[in-house]
Amino acid sequence: MTSIEARLDKIESRVEIEELVSKYAQAFDRHDRDMLRSVWFEDSVLNLGPNFGAPFEGVEGIMAAAEKLWAKTPKMHHWMANSIVVIDDDTAKAETALDCFVIDSDDGPTQVGGLYTDHLERRQGVWKIKLREFELHYWAPLNNWSAVAGTDAVTVKA
Amino acid sequence: MTSIEARLDKIESRVEIEELVSKYAQAFDRHDRDMLRSVWFEDSVLNLGPNFGAPFEGVEGIMAAAEKLWAKTPKMHHWMANSIVVIDDDTAKAETALDCFVIDSDDGPTQVGGLYTDHLERRQGVWKIKLREFELHYWAPLNNWSAVAGTDAVTVKA
Amino acid sequence: MTSIEARLDKIESRVEIEELVSKYAQAFDRHDRDMLRSVWFEDSVLNLGPNFGAPFEGVEGIMAAAEKLWAKTPKMHHWMANSIVVIDDDTAKAETALDCFVIDSDDGPTQVGGLYTDHLERRQGVWKIKLREFELHYWAPLNNWSAVAGTDAVTVKA
Repeated sequence: MTSIEARLDKIESRVEIEELVSKYAQAFDRHDRDMLRSVWFEDSVLNLGPNFGAPFEGVEGIMAAAEKLWAKTPKMHHWMANSIVVIDDDTAKAETALDCFVIDSDDGPTQVGGLYTDHLERRQGVWKIKLREFELHYWAPLNNWSAVAGTDAVTVKA
Repeated sequence: MTSIEARLDKIESRVEIEELVSKYAQAFDRHDRDMLRSVWFEDSVLNLGPNFGAPFEGVEGIMAAAEKLWAKTPKMHHWMANSIVVIDDDTAKAETALDCFVIDSDDGPTQVGGLYTDHLERRQGVWKIKLREFELHYWAPLNNWSAVAGTDAVTVKA
Repeated sequence: MTSIEARLDKIESRVEIEELVSKYAQAFDRHDRDMLRSVWFEDSVLNLGPNFGAPFEGVEGIMAAAEKLWAKTPKMHHWMANSIVVIDDDTAKAETALDCFVIDSDDGPTQVGGLYTDHLERRQGVWKIKLREFELHYWAPLNNWSAVAGTDAVTVKA
């Protein structure tokens, strides 16, 4: 590649990576199975951390886990922000902050915050997420908040 | 156009489209009439859905509607996230999630969530929003939340 | 530069500027001192406005202020959105909305909103923030909210 092509390729890669981050969020919020499936390779892994169970292995494992997550938490709203993306040829790392509001079948309306770390690869010219890890910062049911509550009103799980 | 120019044009278009999404949000939050006006063509339409009335037709109709929205909800904070943008020459579609916090004259402090779908066009070299549609996911006055409230504390209008 | 190179340079500059905005947020949230230091020149200024004290002068002044902010507010979550970026050769201006949730040692869980205005420069080929100004829109301790509260439940400091 010429220098111009290499620079263009890097920017295009970044756009593709940001779209993957957006699609994960929109797919979960809209229960869009095709969109969710499109962001993974066959051998990708989604590790949401100990609060959400063992890592989900392979795209079929991830899709099965999504069905369980939707059953427990039927309404989700993810807002991704602050992406830091480092691209090295055909691999990349992206760190993106999460602001999230869900309606959980056990806890009711709940604010969730955390950080996603994605390890991405480009195979046959297409970027996808190879490994997504999530660090939960808080899971805060709104029903725990009241005029007399202190900082303990927010359950910080991690 | 050469291949390089076409690729560059696509990225530049995406940047312009993302700026339009940002400007809509900042214009409403800052009551910036010039900025709000700048994102529409003369014949554009803003359809916020049944909770906000019939579609606002034309830039003058949109500006008049904005004045009414500001009168009812003087403080707004829009945060746009997760844009998925598909560009096809001189037309484009963008879907962007909304997280929003407003102070409404009737309902007080209120969390709002939803999804914007934009249909954009490029005319005489300039991208603008031709049609913006909004799908409301919830309108949740904070005053409805308490330590004893269940999931019903969040009013899901749509 | 050729026209192609100039266009590419502008897009790359925008990516770098957006990364700086992301890094400020992630650095504060993760208490990452190296990352926070990396976004400033030696003579940069951070002005968070009257609620947070006089402007912090120079990178050392900013780093010292960060230590005090972390002591008072140990947990922070910044989500940046709606960046509007205007680039003029080696200077740029970026306006970015803030959604923020903190756990403050005095006020407990608190929602914060506002707008950052960055004045950036490119020196020796590297973009950094020369001056960051913050306009606080609200500082709203959640403990003030209850089923009987009105709009006064949200403390609007600015």
